[in-house]
Amino acid sequence: MKKTVITISREYGSGGRIIGKKLADALGFSFYDGELLSLVAKESGYTVEFVRQNDQKKTHSLLYHLYMGSQVLPASDMIFIAQSKVIKDLYSKESCVIVGRCADYVLRGKEDVINIFIHAPLESRMARVEKEYAEKADNYKSYVQKQDKSRVAYYNYFADDAWGKVQTYDLAVNSNIGIDEAVKLIVDYVKMKQGE
Amino acid sequence: MKKTVITISREYGSGGRIIGKKLADALGFSFYDGELLSLVAKESGYTVEFVRQNDQKKTHSLLYHLYMGSQVLPASDMIFIAQSKVIKDLYSKESCVIVGRCADYVLRGKEDVINIFIHAPLESRMARVEKEYAEKADNYKSYVQKQDKSRVAYYNYFADDAWGKVQTYDLAVNSNIGIDEAVKLIVDYVKMKQGE
Repeated sequence: MKKTVITISREYGSGGRIIGKKLADALGFSFYDGELLSLVAKESGYTVEFVRQNDQKKTHSLLYHLYMGSQVLPASDMIFIAQSKVIKDLYSKESCVIVGRCADYVLRGKEDVINIFIHAPLESRMARVEKEYAEKADNYKSYVQKQDKSRVAYYNYFADDAWGKVQTYDLAVNSNIGIDEAVKLIVDYVKMKQGE
Repeated sequence: MKKTVITISREYGSGGRIIGKKLADALGFSFYDGELLSLVAKESGYTVEFVRQNDQKKTHSLLYHLYMGSQVLPASDMIFIAQSKVIKDLYSKESCVIVGRCADYVLRGKEDVINIFIHAPLESRMARVEKEYAEKADNYKSYVQKQDKSRVAYYNYFADDAWGKVQTYDLAVNSNIGIDEAVKLIVDYVKMKQGE
């Protein structure tokens, strides 16, 4: 199979991460989600723990920082820059699946990149977060919606407004057909794209 | 196979209509695109030719018509109402594939409806419109973009702003993998959804 980078964007609780992991296993590709953090730490000079704390978070705007008299970029911006470099390095050297982190934006326009979006109805995402992710929340509906908003805000800050638009993705799937089924569908798509 | 209605929304020139037709053939379902017009004519009392002229067109707003002193709804609105009734009737009695006409909106929230979106990069859509659809235009780029805008305006007028958002569709596919490949992928999705 030709070198390919697959990016996975996903709604919170849609099972996008596990689909990405199983997809990487099925294709024999490397998998990067939290795994990216140590590479980003190395690139940026920050500790892994510091990178983790600022991972996929939107900061105050750059203007705010300039107004506050800061001479350096906010940490999240520095981390995003380091992360983008890591993603481009991975693209140049190996086939892999990358979850989140605006990877579709960082690699936009490049050949051999397949962008996938995973979503699911709110009710099934609430149930997955409670039962499978075993996360604790008083109100799962507002918890899931808050995570969604945070993802969109992160993308809008570092990328553009293309998150969640069908044209941004080669394939967008409602994971309600089942996790393994979604993986099989994406594997088929990748093979078709490669003319196999 | 269980009774299922599949709606196809599509960018102009993406091959969405032919994908819908081949999908219907593959599944043994009825197919409705222009075929809907005679049913709508019968339901509305207009001639087929009049329905065709007003098909998938947005009118002046209802307020404009009230301002002009009209006592009846604009023809396009009457046709949309008749068309929505036809779509709901089809839903209640047979498995079928329906292209366009806000069918996803008309049937929103109903069981056993699968919403599909077909898109493709602008360049490949321009090429398809020129070579396969054999349509004549001085500038294919602006021609295709104008058709896209008209579709979005029609949807926004009669439905809501959910056109082109990933969450609106169970499956959204870039048809650049090939027409037959896209059909195969959708057939697999439908079978997975039905637990086959």
